[in-house]
Order: sequence, then C-alpha cells, then structure tokens
Amino acid sequence: MLGSTHGTLTTDSRRARVIACGERRPGPVVHDRVDDLDVSGRPLYADVPDLTRFFRPESVAVIGASDAEGRPNTGITRQLLAWAERVGARVYPVHPTRPSVFGIPCAASVAELPPGQIDLAVLLVADPLPVVEELADAKVRFAVAFASGFAETGEAGAEAQARLADAVRRSGLRLLGPNTNLNAFEHFREDLTGPAIALITQSGHQGRPVFALQELGIRLSHWAPTGNEADLETADFLSWFAEQPEVGTVACYVEGLKDGRAFLLAADRAARRGVPVVAVKVGRTEAGARTAASHTGKLTGADDVVDAAMRQFGVVRVDGLDELQDTAALLARARAPLADGVAVYSISGGTGAHAADLATAAGLHLPRLSQARQAELHQWIPEYLSVANPVDNGGHPVGDARGRKIIDAILADPSVGVLICPVTGPFPPLSDKLVADLVEAAEETDKLVCVVWGSPVGTEAAYREVLLGSSRVATFRTLGNCLRAVRAWLDHHRFVSDYRSPFDEAPRTPSPSYRKAEALMRPGQQLSEHAAKQLLRAYGIRVPREQLVTSAAAAVRAAAQVGYPVVMKASGAQIAHKTELGLVKIGLTSASQVRDAYRELTDIARYEGVALDGILVCQMVEQGVEMVLGMSHDDLFGPTVTVGLGGVLVEVLHDAAVRVPPFGEDQARAMLTELRGRALLDGVRGRPPADRDALVEVVLRVQRMALELGDFIAELDINPLLVLPRGQGAVALDALVVCR
Amino acid sequence: MLGSTHGTLTTDSRRARVIACGERRPGPVVHDRVDDLDVSGRPLYADVPDLTRFFRPESVAVIGASDAEGRPNTGITRQLLAWAERVGARVYPVHPTRPSVFGIPCAASVAELPPGQIDLAVLLVADPLPVVEELADAKVRFAVAFASGFAETGEAGAEAQARLADAVRRSGLRLLGPNTNLNAFEHFREDLTGPAIALITQSGHQGRPVFALQELGIRLSHWAPTGNEADLETADFLSWFAEQPEVGTVACYVEGLKDGRAFLLAADRAARRGVPVVAVKVGRTEAGARTAASHTGKLTGADDVVDAAMRQFGVVRVDGLDELQDTAALLARARAPLADGVAVYSISGGTGAHAADLATAAGLHLPRLSQARQAELHQWIPEYLSVANPVDNGGHPVGDARGRKIIDAILADPSVGVLICPVTGPFPPLSDKLVADLVEAAEETDKLVCVVWGSPVGTEAAYREVLLGSSRVATFRTLGNCLRAVRAWLDHHRFVSDYRSPFDEAPRTPSPSYRKAEALMRPGQQLSEHAAKQLLRAYGIRVPREQLVTSAAAAVRAAAQVGYPVVMKASGAQIAHKTELGLVKIGLTSASQVRDAYRELTDIARYEGVALDGILVCQMVEQGVEMVLGMSHDDLFGPTVTVGLGGVLVEVLHDAAVRVPPFGEDQARAMLTELRGRALLDGVRGRPPADRDALVEVVLRVQRMALELGDFIAELDINPLLVLPRGQGAVALDALVVCR
Repeated sequence: MLGSTHGTLTTDSRRARVIACGERRPGPVVHDRVDDLDVSGRPLYADVPDLTRFFRPESVAVIGASDAEGRPNTGITRQLLAWAERVGARVYPVHPTRPSVFGIPCAASVAELPPGQIDLAVLLVADPLPVVEELADAKVRFAVAFASGFAETGEAGAEAQARLADAVRRSGLRLLGPNTNLNAFEHFREDLTGPAIALITQSGHQGRPVFALQELGIRLSHWAPTGNEADLETADFLSWFAEQPEVGTVACYVEGLKDGRAFLLAADRAARRGVPVVAVKVGRTEAGARTAASHTGKLTGADDVVDAAMRQFGVVRVDGLDELQDTAALLARARAPLADGVAVYSISGGTGAHAADLATAAGLHLPRLSQARQAELHQWIPEYLSVANPVDNGGHPVGDARGRKIIDAILADPSVGVLICPVTGPFPPLSDKLVADLVEAAEETDKLVCVVWGSPVGTEAAYREVLLGSSRVATFRTLGNCLRAVRAWLDHHRFVSDYRSPFDEAPRTPSPSYRKAEALMRPGQQLSEHAAKQLLRAYGIRVPREQLVTSAAAAVRAAAQVGYPVVMKASGAQIAHKTELGLVKIGLTSASQVRDAYRELTDIARYEGVALDGILVCQMVEQGVEMVLGMSHDDLFGPTVTVGLGGVLVEVLHDAAVRVPPFGEDQARAMLTELRGRALLDGVRGRPPADRDALVEVVLRVQRMALELGDFIAELDINPLLVLPRGQGAVALDALVVCR
Repeated sequence: MLGSTHGTLTTDSRRARVIACGERRPGPVVHDRVDDLDVSGRPLYADVPDLTRFFRPESVAVIGASDAEGRPNTGITRQLLAWAERVGARVYPVHPTRPSVFGIPCAASVAELPPGQIDLAVLLVADPLPVVEELADAKVRFAVAFASGFAETGEAGAEAQARLADAVRRSGLRLLGPNTNLNAFEHFREDLTGPAIALITQSGHQGRPVFALQELGIRLSHWAPTGNEADLETADFLSWFAEQPEVGTVACYVEGLKDGRAFLLAADRAARRGVPVVAVKVGRTEAGARTAASHTGKLTGADDVVDAAMRQFGVVRVDGLDELQDTAALLARARAPLADGVAVYSISGGTGAHAADLATAAGLHLPRLSQARQAELHQWIPEYLSVANPVDNGGHPVGDARGRKIIDAILADPSVGVLICPVTGPFPPLSDKLVADLVEAAEETDKLVCVVWGSPVGTEAAYREVLLGSSRVATFRTLGNCLRAVRAWLDHHRFVSDYRSPFDEAPRTPSPSYRKAEALMRPGQQLSEHAAKQLLRAYGIRVPREQLVTSAAAAVRAAAQVGYPVVMKASGAQIAHKTELGLVKIGLTSASQVRDAYRELTDIARYEGVALDGILVCQMVEQGVEMVLGMSHDDLFGPTVTVGLGGVLVEVLHDAAVRVPPFGEDQARAMLTELRGRALLDGVRGRPPADRDALVEVVLRVQRMALELGDFIAELDINPLLVLPRGQGAVALDALVVCR
C-alpha cells in the first residue's frame, strides 16, 4: 500500500539512507561494522578513525610553507616546526619556487613527496581543493585545511565546501577543517601527570579557557578544533579520544552537530568505556526547528531533543565555559566515588550552613554523621559547635594538630565520599594551615577532597601554590561550580555503572506488526481515527472496543455490542480537534440517546463540511490518568518519542519528556520521572496509583513504531492515552496519524 | 463576639503588639513615627538609628584593653588603635589595674570615663552584661560586644542573650553583637572612588569575599557584622546605609531575619531612594516552617515567603557569594540604563553566538541592529561576518583603528544600553588592544560596558591592570555572573522607576466590613461553609446564591428560589474534604432530585458521624477557571496571601504565588504572572479569557481580610474561586475558615 516514493524496508534502501545521512566513507577504521543497521536503517556501530598518526605523525608536509618575513604562513610554519620537533616528526616543506624553508629543503609539489610516507599534510593554501587529489595520489593519511571562506560565509561557500568534502570522500584521505586553526598543534605541557582532558571545539576561540587550565595544573592531552567539519567531525574525535588511555574526560564545545546518530554512537562508546563527556552545546534559545500539526509534536523543541539525547548517553551538558572547565577538570581526575555522601567542613558555622543549603538544593546528599563520629570530632571541636554535617570547627582547631585529625575523621566515615571545604578568604594563620592539611589528607585518601577558594583575588600563595600545586585536591573558585561538578561526577559514575547500550538491543529486523502496519499507510494523508487505532492495535496497543457505522440503526446495534455507556465520534481522514467542533458525544446510555447523537454528529459534520467515513461507536473508558504520547521528527536525530501528562498539564505547561530511539525500558521509566506532574501517576487525593508498567510498555511500543515506521509516518499522536489503575493497563482513546 | 483572649483592635493593643514584634525602643532616630501603624497593628515607618557616630566616632572606649604580649585582647586593642587613628577618634582604654595601654592612660572603670563624651564602647570582656548599665550611666551611644557563648550555643546562651537584650533596651544604648567581631573596624581603602558597596553580614566570615573586592578596585564603605543581633539588626544597618550618599548598593548575607516587618520597612526605604539591595539569604532547602490544614496554607514554604517578600521590595536575592560580589559591584557602580537592549560583541562568531544564546536564556533582550547600523559596522568588518547582534568582527579589525570605531558605533545605537564583550583568553596582539579600546570607550559613554575575562588564570596584565584598573568597565570572570548581574541591574531600575511604597497606602483603620466580620468569629473553631461565605460576602467577595435548609421540603423551596440547576452540600463547623466524603451533589435539576439528594446527604453525614448545621442549596456556577486563594501565617512575616491555579495544577504542581501584605494592585497582578499555568487565565483551546480584573480585586479583598483579621483567623481558604469569563466576575464556590 506504500506509494512509489516510499519503497519498503529493503536492506539496500536502508544502507543507501545510511550513506546519505551519516556520510560514512572508507578510511582507516578500528571497527568496520557499518553494515550493522537497526530496523530504521541507521547504523548501530560507529567506525572510529585511528587518529594516532594525526596527533603524533612521523612525517608532516607543510603545503605552502614559508620563511619570508611578514608572510602569515611564516609564523604558522615556524609554529609547526616547533611542534614537529616536540613530537619527533620529520617536516617536508612544499613550495613551488623556494628551494628551502628555514633551512629544510623544499619539495616543489606534493607529487615530489615520498609516496606513502607522509602521515599529515598541513594545507596553508587558500584553496585546498586542487591539493586534495594530489595528496591522495601521494597516499597521505591526514590533512588539515586552515582556509576560510567555506560554509561559514554563506551559500557559495557551502557549495565550495560540498565540493571539497566530495573530493575528500573520494580520496581516502581524512581531513580536518576547513576553517580550522593550529590548536591541534599547540604546546601541551608534558610535566603534568594523571588523567587528562581531551578537548574538541568547533570554534578554537571557545577552547582557550579549557586549554588555559594547564596553567592551573590540569593536564590536557589533545585539542581537536573541528572547524567546518567537511570530513572529520566531533563524533570521530570523541570516539577516538574515549579509547586513549591518558584521556580522563572529553570536553566538547559544540555549535551544531553534523550527524546526530554519529554523535550518539560516539557518546555510547565513551559511556561503555566509562569515559565522561562534558559538553557546551549552543542553542538553548533556538526556536524549535520542528513543525508539527499534532499535539505531542509541538511539545518539545529541537534543543529539548538535544538535551534528552545527551542525557540518554550520559553526556553532561553545561552552559558556561567556566562550568565546562570545572566539571571537565573534576571528571578527568577524580577516582570513582566510594560513597555518595557529601560532608561540608568549614571554620565558620555560617559558611558551613550556607554551603550545606546550596549543596542540598543542588541535589547532593549530606548524611548526618553518626553519634560515634560526632563524639570523635568533639574531642577536638568544642561541644557547642555542630559537627553533625556540616562540620563547624569554630576556627581554632585548624591552627594545631587537631586540624588534620578532624579532616581524617570526616574522611574515615563510610557514609562520606566527598569532603567540600569552602574557604571564604585568606586569613593565613588559619587558612594556610587548613589548606596544607587538606592537601596532605587528600594524598592519603581515595575519597574526593574539594576546596572552594572564595577570595575573588586569586593571587594568594595558599591558592596558587598549595592548592593548585596538588593534583589530589579539586580546587574551585565558586561554590556553585563545585557543587555542579560534584553532582556531575556522582551522576556519571551512577550512570556508567547502570549503563546498557541501547544499540546492543535495538531491533534489526521488522516485527510481525510491521506487515500489518504497511497495509494501513496512506502516503501524504492523515488516517481516520479508526485506521489510526487499527495501526495502534497492530503494535499491541490497546484501544477501546469500537465499531464504525454509517446509519443510526447500525449505531444502536453497535452500542449494544460494545456495551453501554458509549462514546460516539465522527470519523474521517481530515478530522482533527473533534471535541472543539462538537464531534464527540460521551456518556450515552440508551438507544434513543445513540440515535439522537448519530443525527447530531452527522448534522454538524455536514454543517462544518467535514467528510466522514462513518461514526465510531466506542466503549466508554473512564477513571484513569490522561496522558499524551506520540512520535515526531527531529531534523538532527530523526524520529523521537514524546510522552506528556494530558489535559491542562500538557496544554498549558507542555509537561512532556522526549527521547531519541533506540532506548531501553530504563529510559522509558526515566521519562515519567521527568514529568513535573508525575505525582498524578502515583494517585493524588485518594485516587489509585496508575498502571506505570503498562504506560512504559506503550511508550516502548510507540518507540518500535518510530523505528519501523518513522520514515513513513510524519506524526503519530495518541491523545489521550488513559492509564488505568495499577494492573488494569492503558487504553488509547484517540489517535492521530499523518503519513509522509 | 470575640473571645476574651482576642480583644478588639484598640490602638493600645495594636501598639503593644508592635513592641513585642518589632522590639522598637527609644534611641537616636531620624524619624520617630513608630505610632503610625497599619490596621493590623504593624508599623508603617521604620525608625532609623543614626549610626554616624558608630562608624565615625570621635571617641572610643576599649573596655578590657590590653598591651600584654600573648593576650588575645592585645591584638584587638592594637587593631582598634590603628583604626581609631585612621578615622580620627580618641581612644580611652579601660582596665581595672593597668595604668596605661600602649602608652595611653587607662581609666579603671567605665564610671571614670568623661560622661556623655564617648560615642562607642568596644567590649572585650567575656560577660558584657554588667558593663551595659555602667555604659548607660556614662551616656555612651554605641557598644560592640565580641563575646560569644550566647544564642549560638543553645538554650542557656539564648537566655543570657535575652537578659543582655533586656538590659540594652532599658539602657538607651545601641549594641552591635554579641558574637560579632572587628569587621566594622577594618581598613577600608580610601583611594577608591565612586559609589561604594556597604556590607551587612551575620557571619563575618561570609563577608570576606565581598571585602576582598577592594583588591580588585571595588570600593567598600562600611561593614556591619551583625552577629547575634541582640539589639542592632540587619534592618537598622540597611535603613541607615540606604541614606548615606557614598553607598551605591547594600550587600547582605543573612542567615535569619530577626523581624520580618523591620526588614521590609528597611528594604522599602532603600527602594524609595533607589538604592539597590543584594542579599544571600540562607535557607533555600529549609523545610517550610508553616503548618496548615488548609490547601493554600501548604502551597508555599517559609523560603517561598522570604523569596516573595524580597521581590516585593526589590531586594535581589542571589545564591552564591560570588554572585553577591559580582551583582553588588555592578549595581553599586553602574549608572541608570539608557536602554534595555544588550549588544554582544566578540572577535569570534562562536563566542558571540554562545554569549547571545545564554543572554537570551537569562531573559535579556538582544535587539537586532538596524540595517543602517549594520552597514556602518561593515565599513570595518568583512561583509560575510554577522553584525546584526551579536557583532562578530572576525578578529583582525581589533588590531587597528577599526577596533575602537566598532565599539563606538555599537554604543551609539539607541537600542543598546549595554555592551557585553566576552574575551575567552589572552591573545595579547588582539586582546590587549581590544581591552584597551573597551576601557577608553567606556570612559566616554554613559552606557554600560561589561567584559567577561574568560581565562581561568587571572594573572594577565590586561585583566589585572587594564580592566581592573578601570572604574568604568564592569569586569566579570564568568559569563553567567555577568548576565545575572546585568539582568539584576536592568530589573532594579525598572523596579524603582515603577515603585510605589505599599506602606503609604496601607489601611490604618478597619473597614466597615470589619464590624460584620467580628460577629462571625468563633475563636478556636472552624466556621461552617455557610458562615465562611458570609464572611467573604462581608468583604465584598461574591458567593453563589444559597440557602441553608434543615428539611427536604425546605430544600425544594430553596432550589426554586435559587434557581435550577442547583448544588447541594452538607454544611457544618467540622466538615472539610466534603467532595471525598460524598457530601456534595451537583447538577440537580428537579424537585425529586433535590429531595433524594437531601436524604442521601443527611444519611452520609449520619453514617460518617458528621454534625450538620443544615444542607446548603446553592446556585450552580460553571464555565470558569478554578483558582485557590487563601491566607496563611508565616512565623517571620505574619499573615500572607496565596493564590494558585485550582484542580490538578495546585494539587500536583503546587502552582501558587504568595505575597506579604501590604501590597498594591501591581503585586496582585504580578502574582498571576508568576503562575506557571497562567495561560489558563488567557483562555486555552477556544475558551474565553477569564476576568483577571475581578480576580485581582478578590486577591486585594483577601489581603484586606488578612490585614484586619489576620490575628483572629488562623487560615482562610477559598477553594475553588471560579473566575468567570471577562466582565463576569469571580465567585467563591467554597470556603474554609479556621479561627484562632
């Protein structure tokens, strides 16, 4: 029944779609499983380019190298030579007329380079396109194009970029850029040890603050400035970084994702390996790119989908670059938590109370220390000070041997996984000793020790030398950033310990429901309510008993079979917003009411000029929680599944949660806990709790529809889905389906 | 009808309550209008102590002064001497045995001090109580008590503090402390100019970061470490600071307010003078202190009330000390905005897009620059870069004369009141010149220029010398804090330009309604629905036509008079949750239905053991938006008024707004805009817009009840209040009143 432009889900058409969507191409890969596709034709495995020789090449060709004073390329060439020396790479300058550059003999063209021996070519030429084919002939593995004037400048530039991308795709070369810069070839400090941050930024400028963390003692291992992403994209670097042993976390600054699925597969790879990913993704206030006629389609904007997709795969999304710095630094270096309890410790009761208040508001758990532990602490802290958590030492004990004992006692508590000590300002007799004790104690524990250095000045020795000199203490400048980072760290470890990749369990072949569904599709049309409900039924979603009738007499017969009371509704392909038009009659309890209703509905339809395929006589189902549930399309991620609370909550508050398939039952349950009105499902004011399990099951069935029919259905909207009391299931009372 | 424990609102009893509540006492005041009370007996004017001689005394007695090595008092004495020298005060050491301290002759006791000539006595003694009376005899104006061991240590300490407070009250002396410190006598930099921050902190420790702002060039004029507030409290300092010409803003760190009304009167004084107040108030996560049986009483916790009260009087509440610093610094120094538009300017498109995104999310308005302005900017900025706002210059123009011209052109735009320039890191060839241009441009404009110095290092000369060296550029370290501060600055100026003090218009005498209401009060009891509705009617709040009947025949007669369809309800003093008990019958359309209903309601009441005073036969009112509206009591602020959206929104989401009387119509309207489900009032899905004006009027009438009856009514709950379509009013369908 599918129109000629749609085709059925053959393996070939699915693969063709993958190429178009993901722009996969040959090249050096670790896994070559691009033929493993889910039922929607999207890849289940990312191919990870081996970027070893990109970041650590043995030989680098500099196309357009120069040593002429005043030429911009001269500065770049000088920087590349210094970098090549540091990483031990041999440099091959290429210039059509110069015999040598900085004393190194020049090749006149790429063709003169030793074939198959160049790992990386840096293109300092204004138009990289002609060079790309020559590089392919010379079997160069990687290239970097700095040239600007491509997609960032408008339509003509975007066309030039498409030509470049095409040439690269044919060449077998992997390209970084165009419109990128030297960030990958910066001087990374090699004296810093421990797990490092690997950085991916679309705008090099925005990576500066994270790069500068090295000056505060935080190690950076790599920086990928992805620029216009004509070829290599954020996902490629994310996947590869997640496999490098020295990388403790990946920090990303993303303006736009090139391929949603590729990003999720990369994030999945990081999640499987337990490597945290922290990202700024610009676009909080973008108007939703999605247009939809249905209810659920309007509930979530494009940024909500990005937000949800990142959460599904454990990517920590932050807003400011300062949060990116602080969260990435903590996630890179902190070991796995030994407990999720946070202890706040300070030399002032006010400071402790304030920090505890904000920590609790940030969702952290501050366990009350046991009586025994409090008694221990009171050996060193006056009785009248509170040590239950927050622990207030009143100041004096810091100055002598008690200071260290207090810290050790707090850290020894099994309920405590994190100690947070806010220091509001330097008062050297106390703060220098406090900080020194914290640094020493942190060396001897596997628990996390955080210090918030609250002085806005930041030139104090206790901060700059002692705290920043420690690789074991996590030092912050604001309590807010400390609390956000600690929360992200605890959440990350909880996430990875529970993580099961949804890609492992995603369906690869259509379900038996799919054949039934195919027959119901009407390309480009909206289905009647009756047909839409048949579609739901095909996927095992319960709908009320109902009959479609075309006469009053048949309506009365149907009502008797369906069972009184009944609901009657106009049914037709073009009907939406039936209730507003008066095309729904509820609570009909007798044959005469059914006859009257039949007449009235057909009258209204005639008056409104609505074409009917009949009148539905439906079982009346009551006493449940009304939800809305649907499928929409996102430009970046494809089909999405949305669930919301019905009635006023969804109409007025847009109280809904969205997910990108594939996702497991855990995420379907998490959607429900995201709803602000979730208490309705637990039963309020004496109502019974709703059948959550049944609701979760329907969400997963809608996901199955999204996966199998996502390319054939523009919108699917179940409104309302009535979730009955626990153990009684859920019933789709109305449905809207628009075919593509 | 009022019980003997309640009394009527005589002027005397009102005044007595003021004393108990606000602890007003004689002393040096600017305004002595403590006899101006509102109808609830609460003061309408704050008495502002003249603190000039506290902060700038001519003579200071140091009780317990010492110069013996190793004594804690010696260090304090030394610091006080240095301070006294700076402010030009003469020091009188007092010590029973020492002839002199640091070469200054000692008085042996307070009695030996020159009477009437000591402005300030600093008490370094362990027990300040015995000294207080001596100080009073010596006519000393102010004292500071450092001693600890009072209310902060528990019950015994609280009693000692109460005795101290009592002695102070009798003495005529004004006391700071106990449990305070030397912060008021710190060394304030005198080389800094322009409007200053005045600081009030309950914990001295928590003021350190704001005090340290002086090292970044931000002027501080005063610091009041209020400690335990046995006498002088936050409100006293706030009122006085707001009147000092050098004070540009007051920054507060508050753990608990001593007297809610005093704080609001002080905030009102600051608002009248246009002086911004920024406060951290600990207690975000405190469990609500209010206990209530009614619906609206449970909707808001104690912290919600603090939050609302602060907003009513324009106090900017922030969470972190870093936000307190950054917001206070901006509010102190920035002139009034010339436009509310924000322009974002950067040397990178990515940086600009990111900042614009977060600025929009923070509620700031980024106007699109006019075509003419864009054309002007494109004289200096390449055509392919966007200059609509954010303005991206691509980098190069910064390096030459174009840099300054671009900044001036943006600032010249009439839609722009603020320029925000994020600098992600130091790249001296560009960033040094950019920063220098911004500093110069800021000198020549009355518009606000903000720079976000994104480098986490902060030792760069461009930051530390150039930016911090400018008193015209507002420099931030994080974009988030910059945006919050700019938003607070714009909001503050909007607030003060619209501000009308609600204390000027608060009722001073009972309304005619009050006499009618008095007769309905039943101390300690819950009123029947019928009586509660009479109370509402007394205050001009519409209720349905209804009759209370005690027989089925009377019910039928009443229904005929009220008009069908009718609602019937059990009425009695002890009945709550009627609907759940089945004690409400709606939509009765005939005499027989009324008779049946009468029988059923009386049967249920008998079965449930509920005492009835009759059955209410009420007009049935439909087709409106259900709200809840009520009055509760807050421990700190007294009676409060709460309005929420009815039904599921209030039950599940607690979607409600609260205000502390007195407030004007503007605040009643603002309450409605705070509701998350406010769109319901505008009419959704084809429903007509609700009568907002009528709703606002009912809110104000409930406020009047709260003011006049707040001491006699424990709880008042109108649930639901049905707000009819525009022009048709609002009707209280049910009411619960519990008398105190």
